[in-house]
Amino acid sequence: MLAEIITIGDELLIGQVVDTNSAWIGQRLNEIGVRIKQITSVSDNEEHILKALDEAGQRSGIILITGGLGPTKDDITKKTLAKFFKAGMRLDGPSLANVERIFRARGREVTELNRRQAEVPENATALLNPLGTAPGMWFEEHGRIYVSLPGVPHEMKGLMEQAVIPQLRQRFMLPPVIHRTILTQGIGESMLSDLLEPWEDALPPHIRLAYLPADGRVRLRLTASGKSEAEINAELDIQVAGLKRLANRYIYGYEEETMEGVVGALFRAKGWKVATAESCTGGYLSHRLTLVPGSSDYYMGSVIAYDNAVKTSLLGVDPKLFDEVGAVSEPVVRVMAENVRKLMGTELGIAISGIAGPSGGTEEKPVGTVWIAVSSPAGTLSKIFQLGQFRERVIREAAQHALAMTRRILLAEPEPEN
Amino acid sequence: MLAEIITIGDELLIGQVVDTNSAWIGQRLNEIGVRIKQITSVSDNEEHILKALDEAGQRSGIILITGGLGPTKDDITKKTLAKFFKAGMRLDGPSLANVERIFRARGREVTELNRRQAEVPENATALLNPLGTAPGMWFEEHGRIYVSLPGVPHEMKGLMEQAVIPQLRQRFMLPPVIHRTILTQGIGESMLSDLLEPWEDALPPHIRLAYLPADGRVRLRLTASGKSEAEINAELDIQVAGLKRLANRYIYGYEEETMEGVVGALFRAKGWKVATAESCTGGYLSHRLTLVPGSSDYYMGSVIAYDNAVKTSLLGVDPKLFDEVGAVSEPVVRVMAENVRKLMGTELGIAISGIAGPSGGTEEKPVGTVWIAVSSPAGTLSKIFQLGQFRERVIREAAQHALAMTRRILLAEPEPEN
Repeated sequence: MLAEIITIGDELLIGQVVDTNSAWIGQRLNEIGVRIKQITSVSDNEEHILKALDEAGQRSGIILITGGLGPTKDDITKKTLAKFFKAGMRLDGPSLANVERIFRARGREVTELNRRQAEVPENATALLNPLGTAPGMWFEEHGRIYVSLPGVPHEMKGLMEQAVIPQLRQRFMLPPVIHRTILTQGIGESMLSDLLEPWEDALPPHIRLAYLPADGRVRLRLTASGKSEAEINAELDIQVAGLKRLANRYIYGYEEETMEGVVGALFRAKGWKVATAESCTGGYLSHRLTLVPGSSDYYMGSVIAYDNAVKTSLLGVDPKLFDEVGAVSEPVVRVMAENVRKLMGTELGIAISGIAGPSGGTEEKPVGTVWIAVSSPAGTLSKIFQLGQFRERVIREAAQHALAMTRRILLAEPEPEN
Repeated sequence: MLAEIITIGDELLIGQVVDTNSAWIGQRLNEIGVRIKQITSVSDNEEHILKALDEAGQRSGIILITGGLGPTKDDITKKTLAKFFKAGMRLDGPSLANVERIFRARGREVTELNRRQAEVPENATALLNPLGTAPGMWFEEHGRIYVSLPGVPHEMKGLMEQAVIPQLRQRFMLPPVIHRTILTQGIGESMLSDLLEPWEDALPPHIRLAYLPADGRVRLRLTASGKSEAEINAELDIQVAGLKRLANRYIYGYEEETMEGVVGALFRAKGWKVATAESCTGGYLSHRLTLVPGSSDYYMGSVIAYDNAVKTSLLGVDPKLFDEVGAVSEPVVRVMAENVRKLMGTELGIAISGIAGPSGGTEEKPVGTVWIAVSSPAGTLSKIFQLGQFRERVIREAAQHALAMTRRILLAEPEPEN
């Protein structure tokens, strides 16, 4: 089955926005056995959108369109689709109720412009978008399927998962394709590939492996197809077991799990509570921990001690240490972890102190130097990291390493050597 | 002048790689007055590449092609271009010298496969690629310009900056195109559009407006072309002034500025310091403030008081208030802001307490209810927000509103009614 993606919006062509939607859609459709023939980005221009729709229909049976569904004048996708299908407009009841619900929840009045968001071409089946005011639209014309989705990534993804993917599967009786995602941390892509080589080389041809590195972790995605879901699942179970024999100490989770979710579940299981003391990460570790719904059950709070005066006044760091060993040092980060634990009465205290840059580095402690300590009833573990020279990346990776250390302490697993 | 981008590679269509090259090229070409008509991604398939080249040439005078120039068999762009132009191959001397230089530097032997990297179609002008073995190629046929570039981003960018952009500018004596981006906060896209309607309707046809909403803010982008940069800038100055007359109280910055950067510059200018006390945002406000390089000059630290016990022990909130009015209330958030300011000795204290969800909401205080207070030498300002029902979005928007309130206090501007 062939599909095309058409992304609409001037912002894509002048490069103000990178088109990440297409890659996501390509991946998801590929997973259910639909091959993308072409991706086309065009501007908010009626004539050009009409031409792109026509050309795509000549090549492929499924055409997915994203973007251009906002309420303002520069968004013309809906109007243009109506013209393409020579259809009038109708007000879709459930979509209008959805618009009204969203505005009520925000305590705002529904304007005429908002109300028009619930209009769809007469020949469209509206796809309810609980995350936004623009409904998706499903058209079947000339033996082809056209689907129009909002360009806002989380709205597009929600509609794809809830409506488009299930309907395409059912419609084309696509053979089952199953994915397993294994999440690893603490090892780079090429070292992981070396480690997995014997296992990877022995994979049968209908099971494919992809390495997806991002933000200090590598996701491994296995994709398999076959006759029945039960058969594929059994085969994948065997392969995942083989993978675990080689790389288990780097695996922290599966599928859509997050490191903070995995760590949160461990806190919950042990009945432990946690507090953090952060310097260079400026609250990003706390943010990660509190992204998890229900984290208030185990996360008490944090002291963000960006200034050394706060490290002393709230976390009891002896100011002499700043002169003797510096704020980015093992003794300071240990005191921070131990004292925030006492201050908030928790089983675990996590502390981070480092140099996020771009300034503040020295020959001895260059930008990217980060000390992390985790204090628990078993004692305090501390570790140094070199996380490169890009501020945001240092912050993100430091939080990721702190969570990984915390996970191993909760599991009473040793830290890997590397 | 119209251009098209064709990106070639299976990895783009199955979504293993996000096409960031096109956005970069689009931005750079737009800056010199070349408008991108279409971006097309196709697989490593000869027939499909030939068709894409043909179609692009029917629409545009400049066709930029990236990808598919590697030495392996799956890379067929060069061979396909030769076929498209019905040209034979020639070995390009300077390109071969470049390949040899690169392999010498790596201490490797040049294989036959590598040597062939220096072959180009007879009708191509080779563009020297100091960062890689695949030369760029410049073709002029049928009154159009075709440029083929490697897909590796830093190689592509090097060739664009060194060769392609200068040659296009010179060749077409391109008219200038200028963009202005105006950043607004505190008003939704549709209400902003209503507010701006009289001004928008009166824009001359050579000045276009786009609304780009994301994360609780709306960016407005004006794009104008004309005879001279001075003339366009003068016209844009007038239009931006008109826009400001209608919407000034929602404008917080311009171009690539961020809210935390704008707020940081104001702290710096006033010589004020800031501390925050966060509950439902769990450190995200601190994270935003500390994303700014040099924020340690004005940001002292934070108390993340997720648990009410921490609100009492570190921020001095009277525990009776939790029973009487609840933790998400004006009295609590005011005490938090005022006390964190005292605790860290700062001019400003910002506090947030709310219900991020998904649980914890009540009829009276549903999920998304957020109280924000900013305490300054002029007193303490507090405000309530309803930010919807999605945890991450409540967190992100609460931080954005807190920064916006802080900005207005630093500027001694009143809060808008909304």
